[in-house]
Amino acid sequence: MSSDLSRERSGVSFPVEELTQFIFGGPEETKKKRWLLSLLDVNKNPVFKNEDRNFISRDKHYVRTLEKLRKLIQYKKQYNIEREDWIFLLLSTGESLQAIMHDFLFIPTLEGQMSQEQLEKWLPLAKDYAIFGCYAQTELGHGSNIRRLETTATYIHETDEFDIHSPTLTSTKWWPGAIARTSTHAALFARLIIDGKDYGVHPFLVQLRGENHKPLPGIDIGDVGPKYGYNNIDNGFVRFTHVRIPRDQMLMKFSKVSRDGTYSTPPYTKAAYGTLVAGRADIIEQTSFYLAKVLCIAIRYSIIRKQGNDTKNNPNELTVLDYQYLQHRLFYGLSIIYTFTFIGRWMRDLYEINKKKVEEGDISLMADVHAISSGLKSLCTNLVMESMNDTLFACGGHGYSHFSGIPSVVETCAQNPIVEGDNTILYLQTGRYLIKAFENAKNGRSTPATLSYLKDYSRILSERSQATTWEELTDPNEQIKALTHHHTQLLAKLISNLEKSSRTHPQGYEGAKSDYMIDIINVSRAFSYKIIITSANEGLESIKSTYPNIYPILRILINLFYSNTIIKYSGEFLLDNYFNSKHIEIFEFGIKNCLKKIRPDAIGLVDAWEFSDNVLNSAIGRYDGNVYETLYNWAKLDPLNLAQERGEYVGYNEVMKSIYNGDYLKGINKSKL
Amino acid sequence: MSSDLSRERSGVSFPVEELTQFIFGGPEETKKKRWLLSLLDVNKNPVFKNEDRNFISRDKHYVRTLEKLRKLIQYKKQYNIEREDWIFLLLSTGESLQAIMHDFLFIPTLEGQMSQEQLEKWLPLAKDYAIFGCYAQTELGHGSNIRRLETTATYIHETDEFDIHSPTLTSTKWWPGAIARTSTHAALFARLIIDGKDYGVHPFLVQLRGENHKPLPGIDIGDVGPKYGYNNIDNGFVRFTHVRIPRDQMLMKFSKVSRDGTYSTPPYTKAAYGTLVAGRADIIEQTSFYLAKVLCIAIRYSIIRKQGNDTKNNPNELTVLDYQYLQHRLFYGLSIIYTFTFIGRWMRDLYEINKKKVEEGDISLMADVHAISSGLKSLCTNLVMESMNDTLFACGGHGYSHFSGIPSVVETCAQNPIVEGDNTILYLQTGRYLIKAFENAKNGRSTPATLSYLKDYSRILSERSQATTWEELTDPNEQIKALTHHHTQLLAKLISNLEKSSRTHPQGYEGAKSDYMIDIINVSRAFSYKIIITSANEGLESIKSTYPNIYPILRILINLFYSNTIIKYSGEFLLDNYFNSKHIEIFEFGIKNCLKKIRPDAIGLVDAWEFSDNVLNSAIGRYDGNVYETLYNWAKLDPLNLAQERGEYVGYNEVMKSIYNGDYLKGINKSKL
Repeated sequence: MSSDLSRERSGVSFPVEELTQFIFGGPEETKKKRWLLSLLDVNKNPVFKNEDRNFISRDKHYVRTLEKLRKLIQYKKQYNIEREDWIFLLLSTGESLQAIMHDFLFIPTLEGQMSQEQLEKWLPLAKDYAIFGCYAQTELGHGSNIRRLETTATYIHETDEFDIHSPTLTSTKWWPGAIARTSTHAALFARLIIDGKDYGVHPFLVQLRGENHKPLPGIDIGDVGPKYGYNNIDNGFVRFTHVRIPRDQMLMKFSKVSRDGTYSTPPYTKAAYGTLVAGRADIIEQTSFYLAKVLCIAIRYSIIRKQGNDTKNNPNELTVLDYQYLQHRLFYGLSIIYTFTFIGRWMRDLYEINKKKVEEGDISLMADVHAISSGLKSLCTNLVMESMNDTLFACGGHGYSHFSGIPSVVETCAQNPIVEGDNTILYLQTGRYLIKAFENAKNGRSTPATLSYLKDYSRILSERSQATTWEELTDPNEQIKALTHHHTQLLAKLISNLEKSSRTHPQGYEGAKSDYMIDIINVSRAFSYKIIITSANEGLESIKSTYPNIYPILRILINLFYSNTIIKYSGEFLLDNYFNSKHIEIFEFGIKNCLKKIRPDAIGLVDAWEFSDNVLNSAIGRYDGNVYETLYNWAKLDPLNLAQERGEYVGYNEVMKSIYNGDYLKGINKSKL
Repeated sequence: MSSDLSRERSGVSFPVEELTQFIFGGPEETKKKRWLLSLLDVNKNPVFKNEDRNFISRDKHYVRTLEKLRKLIQYKKQYNIEREDWIFLLLSTGESLQAIMHDFLFIPTLEGQMSQEQLEKWLPLAKDYAIFGCYAQTELGHGSNIRRLETTATYIHETDEFDIHSPTLTSTKWWPGAIARTSTHAALFARLIIDGKDYGVHPFLVQLRGENHKPLPGIDIGDVGPKYGYNNIDNGFVRFTHVRIPRDQMLMKFSKVSRDGTYSTPPYTKAAYGTLVAGRADIIEQTSFYLAKVLCIAIRYSIIRKQGNDTKNNPNELTVLDYQYLQHRLFYGLSIIYTFTFIGRWMRDLYEINKKKVEEGDISLMADVHAISSGLKSLCTNLVMESMNDTLFACGGHGYSHFSGIPSVVETCAQNPIVEGDNTILYLQTGRYLIKAFENAKNGRSTPATLSYLKDYSRILSERSQATTWEELTDPNEQIKALTHHHTQLLAKLISNLEKSSRTHPQGYEGAKSDYMIDIINVSRAFSYKIIITSANEGLESIKSTYPNIYPILRILINLFYSNTIIKYSGEFLLDNYFNSKHIEIFEFGIKNCLKKIRPDAIGLVDAWEFSDNVLNSAIGRYDGNVYETLYNWAKLDPLNLAQERGEYVGYNEVMKSIYNGDYLKGINKSKL
């Protein structure tokens, strides 16, 4: 064990066990989660080993992933593991797994869209993994605009079937995870056509592969090729040439087609997008987990790593974590992790409340949940990507090595700003909701409950911060007040510009919006910051008595996140003097103080996540700090080095020996001038 | 050819040929560069094909790279291709090549550090590629702090040799490019030890491999393993166990060791770091090239790609490039490319001027060149990485695919903030220079010529922008004035804080600095922006008459870069009222106007670089816009899909068939409820 790390660990100001319990959700949950982690013990189950992952080819990595999946499914059945624990178990393998698509996209689609009769047949098969499914929506030519999907499902009266067809190249289903090789079935979104009439996009269950896993006739299926990350997942394409499925494989909870081809649909069918909102909530919840992995690696390494500041009087180099600039980068990351831990829980709760309401026929929260989850997903994934990239760079050369374990997390998470709704599109959707709410508030009409404060917009706009000290500035209520003012101010300015501009714009108000997209995105982001700060502060205050010993450090972390946000957007706060230059100075000074206070606790803040060395799969982020020996040992295992040990000089025999002057090279270092 | 692209190309407002001539450096240069590009024609030389690069393993990719290198070396010798053209040719392959290390690190080290006698022996061998060299400086435990390198070169009187040794694991040379398999020799940096006395780090020439490329005795050499990017380059490690080299393989242009072990060194030997400054200048110059590749892909694809805004009245979806938010992201990238084109040239010129001076014994520019190149390298590489990542996300799902060609450029360029000096460390070095200069200016002492304006600091600090219109705000002189004010203001505030803080800090002024690292970095960045804006504006004005038809669009691009910078740091300009809220509004409005003006010219601004489809290696960035067919065709070539065509279902036989219910799957879609 590195003495540097031991010393750091003994200096942590709070009981790390308490923080672990907070992260895991209480003492009982902690016990359960530790048990779940024990299932992944590589000594008991070598299949979970990630060690050689950097050296294996894509197909081997795929098979390895399935081997893990098989073992996990066995555990799931054996111990009857439920949703939250299943997610935790999957995440804790350190690997993306196809179960995500089957369990969290395919099954919820069946559950949400199938009739009772259909469910009785299919759900047991799916839950037993007798069939394996995926979610097939996006097409080669269409992602976000679902209305324009081209795949057709045409009702054939004669045989009581749908004819599934890809009429164009661009209608080829493209991107679905686990479709290329793993899935036997797909929840497919296609345009329903009856007697030449287009009823829009509906879900269907389509079998893709039959006996011995052979693709069924008419199904051209394959992998979409290598990606930035996520390469053990078989994202794929499917092109249908008149593939027939029985009528009752249209998912008929809501819209229905009868034997005579009559289409019926209930008045309200928006429940469909519950699946996507759940996906966003999952992403928001998991951002903390992934960023914590990367920060755990970076902080441990930054304690081991020494650099500079050595002089004759001071012969030892400094631990790099003692440098303010590195603290500024890494502790901002820590502040994101813990702030987002609260957001993830809050978003999950909101999702559950809404789900229950919708089940009871109450859709009053639907628009809020959609708009809030959209903005949060965008802001959280953007901030996490920025912080991850910055953390990679903060680890110098060794961060760039795959042995650090950081690039693979960056590559995997880089899909988050794109999937489950592109971040920009989502921001624009949140913006539409805000604009409408503000217009309503201005005109005395009703606003969504979560935006009722907008009725008070003139008071909010007239407010200026009265705080004069750091304590006052970072008081939870003042934090919420400042960010409420901030997004309301941007929103009011936007609305005023839109109104002005719409008077002369040929396409009126809607046209004017297209000239203010930058501003709409800014407003949505500001609103999302406000949601984050509000729920993080409320969340923190609510756990004060349950977790009294970690409250102080969490308070500092949220204050740091907040203060960095203010500094980043200081221009927008100074513009209308909500804050003045004195405030900004207090924030700048306060940030530096936060860094000093976090410094001794940094190791505890990452250790508390209890990542195993196997899940981090990092030479530089090991628990024991044995950085340099591990880097060296892992390099020795590189297949190219093993080849050399066998006397194979890759590249030399094939090419370079025809360039070099062989005779010369016989002389060794001894040759003199 | 896509009709969308043809239409766009016919609508460009300037002659693209003129822009190409500007990029390539005039009509003669354009002719020559086109001839160089013709050498890479894949029809003539299939070895240059990049098409299957996404599918091949690391060792195959390495061999492929060497095959390209062999052909290039043949051309180089045949046509006597010189430095700038050689760089252009290498870059234009779309591949990183080991020649970079040999030609731009190894040879310059020999040239800069060898005595005349040594040069006569070694330079011809190196230039002929009879030997192949690399630059071995960084160690497993040490990167930026060169003083602390551990490898030793101990003089052995008896045999007139140096004993090269790695005394610790952390002294293992780590990271040198092309050292693992390609190089026969290394320019090695090691501590010179004579009779137990340590004379500090000096350069040595060490042969690594002998006959048949076998590593020489005592040399433990290998690959450092897979990295985020750059995986066709064999970055490696070397550990020496008492390897002897003749005394005359210490590079003795400056310091010398005589036969009796007497060490001598001239009074000034800082010329050494010319190599690193040259490396930084190269990086700065090449950032535009790499970002242009990525933007070329993104802009072509964003013209082909249609999304949303379709209504009953308006059935066609919009070209995504018509959306303001996308323009904001991509055209900011364009503004970086063209602004940095000027910076690259300016930095190269400055480097050459200094080089000439140093050769004449005049080191007056040395500190400026070091400080300026450090800050510029940091700012340029950071901004380019941000813009590249943002461009990747701006391309949605297809951007995430390796078939887009974007991830591989991102991964390669991600090393730039780390190599040739870590960006943060470089910013701190620039900061040290600025602090010293300001202190001097304040106390009436002399400042470097490039910072002589600091003598006027009180006037600069008292200035406020008098501009009232967009034209006035973006006037070149006003741009320079604003950024001069900006960094001077930050610098003055920093110095004042440092002075205050040093009075009470136990380590005095130096100690105080460690509490203001964030501020020092901010000042260096602000200074670097000022250098960029100054030289870009001066550069642009100087070509006004030579390139009259492209001047207007370049003017808009530089104005856009400048305005985005002001908005990004608006808080710092509002703090002391250099700009007021009215100014900020004009900037915000002006940015949107720039986007509108750039929109029709976007395709011309990327086409002008004349990237071949082979160098872009992008399904979505093709010249003919045949995006979707290419994505589909490329996916079909994935080895995993080819396996399926042979009836091999990777993963199914190994794992999944034991999970799925085989009997059920015999029934195909026909099975009914």
